[in-house]
Amino acid sequence: MAHIELPAGLPGISGPLRQYPETGEALCLLAERLLRGPSSLTSAEREMIATFVSSRNECEFCMNSHGAAARSLLGDDCAIVDAVVADYESANVDDKLKALLTIAGKVQQGGRRVTTDDIAHARAAGADDKAIHDTVLIAAAFCMYNRYVDGLDTLIPDESIYAQMGEGLAKGGYMGNRPPA
Amino acid sequence: MAHIELPAGLPGISGPLRQYPETGEALCLLAERLLRGPSSLTSAEREMIATFVSSRNECEFCMNSHGAAARSLLGDDCAIVDAVVADYESANVDDKLKALLTIAGKVQQGGRRVTTDDIAHARAAGADDKAIHDTVLIAAAFCMYNRYVDGLDTLIPDESIYAQMGEGLAKGGYMGNRPPA
Repeated sequence: MAHIELPAGLPGISGPLRQYPETGEALCLLAERLLRGPSSLTSAEREMIATFVSSRNECEFCMNSHGAAARSLLGDDCAIVDAVVADYESANVDDKLKALLTIAGKVQQGGRRVTTDDIAHARAAGADDKAIHDTVLIAAAFCMYNRYVDGLDTLIPDESIYAQMGEGLAKGGYMGNRPPA
Repeated sequence: MAHIELPAGLPGISGPLRQYPETGEALCLLAERLLRGPSSLTSAEREMIATFVSSRNECEFCMNSHGAAARSLLGDDCAIVDAVVADYESANVDDKLKALLTIAGKVQQGGRRVTTDDIAHARAAGADDKAIHDTVLIAAAFCMYNRYVDGLDTLIPDESIYAQMGEGLAKGGYMGNRPPA
């Protein structure tokens, strides 16, 4: 049972988003714009960064739901999601994404861990300002979402539901979670 | 110099909010609703929780700016802000806020650290569901804002500007930072 009263049966973050719609709307808007808005990174790359950070924070719900969204976006290449979470340095992704995942991993530990060398390495691999910005903010934002989900001890659903949830997020985005204004 | 190009002279989070207005709008909306919207906690209490978490994350800009907002809201009682940051257990605040600061400190370390005993202790001291929710989300959100500010190595302003900044936030809120749509 969650630490506070939440609508019955809603998994993970869906419960507090519904119960507290004022903050819920802002949280959904941030996810929508950050993961699906204009960027030099694909939505699949951004969902993989979100999945990777959620894995480092040991947030089962976010790791599984965003991992499923990334898999849905990647289609035939969906196996790289697990590879990135397990060991991104050896995964079949380009050097730009590897350099950005290094930055994301530093941000997960604390903002001051990111060095000018980390940034230079990402730029040398092709990352522009927007890619660096989005990586830092995605990593930071999932340090929030993960803590919100687990700090309230929200409902962890059966693993069987994530594939459908991920497909819904990949196709429809995050504003469908937005409670009526 | 920040890790990415930002508008010159804007301190802390103001630079990336201005440079990236799509996400900036969502980030400002969250701060406005979470710190100043309807709650069973006063805005001063919520700003103190934000200041405390920013201190634990060693984010100088957020600690100083939200500390200044809390001081402005507290007026003659402004000395309790420093006392809360230094050692909240011995600070001159009520048991409810102490219990909520314990929860905030756990969330700062990771969402799973919060125990049912922490929640029961806060309820016994008078915290309702909304106070617990807001505490968890404020602590989680400042784990994001702090990482965003420091992960991009944004400009740290001279300490002399925080008092005025805090008064502006206390009186005018967070939507003034919102870039033009």
